[in-house]
Amino acid sequence: MTTKPWDLETTCQKYAAAGVPGVGLWRQWLEGRTLNESRRILDDHGIQAVSLVRSGFYPYLNQAEKQNAFDDNIRALDEAAAMGAPQVVLVCGAKPELSLSENRRHITEGIASLTEYASKVGVKLAIEPLHPMYADCRSAVNTIGQCNDIIDQVGEAWVGIAADVYHIWWDPDLEKSVKRAGKRIIALHVCDWMTPTSDMLNDRGLMGEGCIDNRGIRELLEGSAGYTDWIEVEVFSTRHWASDQDAYLQRIIESYKQNV
Amino acid sequence: MTTKPWDLETTCQKYAAAGVPGVGLWRQWLEGRTLNESRRILDDHGIQAVSLVRSGFYPYLNQAEKQNAFDDNIRALDEAAAMGAPQVVLVCGAKPELSLSENRRHITEGIASLTEYASKVGVKLAIEPLHPMYADCRSAVNTIGQCNDIIDQVGEAWVGIAADVYHIWWDPDLEKSVKRAGKRIIALHVCDWMTPTSDMLNDRGLMGEGCIDNRGIRELLEGSAGYTDWIEVEVFSTRHWASDQDAYLQRIIESYKQNV
Repeated sequence: MTTKPWDLETTCQKYAAAGVPGVGLWRQWLEGRTLNESRRILDDHGIQAVSLVRSGFYPYLNQAEKQNAFDDNIRALDEAAAMGAPQVVLVCGAKPELSLSENRRHITEGIASLTEYASKVGVKLAIEPLHPMYADCRSAVNTIGQCNDIIDQVGEAWVGIAADVYHIWWDPDLEKSVKRAGKRIIALHVCDWMTPTSDMLNDRGLMGEGCIDNRGIRELLEGSAGYTDWIEVEVFSTRHWASDQDAYLQRIIESYKQNV
Repeated sequence: MTTKPWDLETTCQKYAAAGVPGVGLWRQWLEGRTLNESRRILDDHGIQAVSLVRSGFYPYLNQAEKQNAFDDNIRALDEAAAMGAPQVVLVCGAKPELSLSENRRHITEGIASLTEYASKVGVKLAIEPLHPMYADCRSAVNTIGQCNDIIDQVGEAWVGIAADVYHIWWDPDLEKSVKRAGKRIIALHVCDWMTPTSDMLNDRGLMGEGCIDNRGIRELLEGSAGYTDWIEVEVFSTRHWASDQDAYLQRIIESYKQNV
């Protein structure tokens, strides 16, 4: 999604040429061909699917919505398995018509309903807490602390946490929650927070353009949670998408080396 | 600020006529006349200044900024005393150039430096935690839990907490933090969160227009923190400001009665 203008074939070719070994694979990029064909594109370029993004969206207003969410989450697990992605990133969802506690109950139950299938296909469910500014309609799970509480309930064998700096950088309990999470943290997404932020969704910055201490958070995860897995650059930015993507890929790599 | 198009005289006259007994007094409304003259406008209409809004903004890049912030906070305490307002609302500030921990240290030290003067003029300092989407440049204090930690350090005789539903509604630790705060909570601001939110500052809703459980939060404060003080409607809304303010004042009152 960071280099959104590129299709899957272009992405894999450009990433491989630049020495970027993996991709966070948004499901839109799988459309229009079979899973085997998509997998072959990745394999042909030696690109690893780091994660499949995204399923979740558990809160429901009726049984049909509940069933649709379950079915879509099962499909996502199948897609991840087919693409060789070790995890599906969960954006848990929220409905403004429901109370916070109801939204959160639906989410915990929704995740619990998937662990058996996740174990069957060998793909982990990565709960991504979203920034509290999305608590109304995108996710009622907003801190790593909440993820820990959910995992205490549903078990940690097939459920982990995707830590995205954009969502968690402000959290006064971050250190405490990361320590408590430990090996539950199975993903780290980096980007930056722009001042001012002109759009709540698509005005993220490259690492170093904003105020997030990306290196500090990386060191916290490595030092306090023993994190050694992939670090994914995830920048949604209308501004950067409008720029030349070849030059942008080079800026991403430099920004990563200097600030993460 | 909720009826921003009205000047102080008009506000007091309209509020008094509608049976609204108090006003959260933003400092811009004091400009252009002496404090005594402003106070007389309030008194003539029997309107109580519930709070003076706002001072704070403690983080600094150099000693001159630190001194300016201190001086402005002292002025705000004097203004509050002159207007008969029992509290000054603190927007604590944040500088994207500083680390979160540095911002937070400046804030705690800034508040501590004011408690003696606050006691002298008999005006409380009300720390208002702001929504985490403002953590980069408006306030690095983002939860009631953090306010509790600060007050543990600076003492609670002259420092309290202003709980604004817009900033705290999403907090998974809200109940726990409110219980811990107890009588430290000295203000309750109500409004609503719109879905979608089109502007990060000025797209608040009237209570009932959005997803915040205003009545639930009021009951939490009353039941778990013994809150019995003023409830202030604080809606920043370009949309509502553009409407007829007389009709809007009636809608505010209805919305308050139905949803708070």
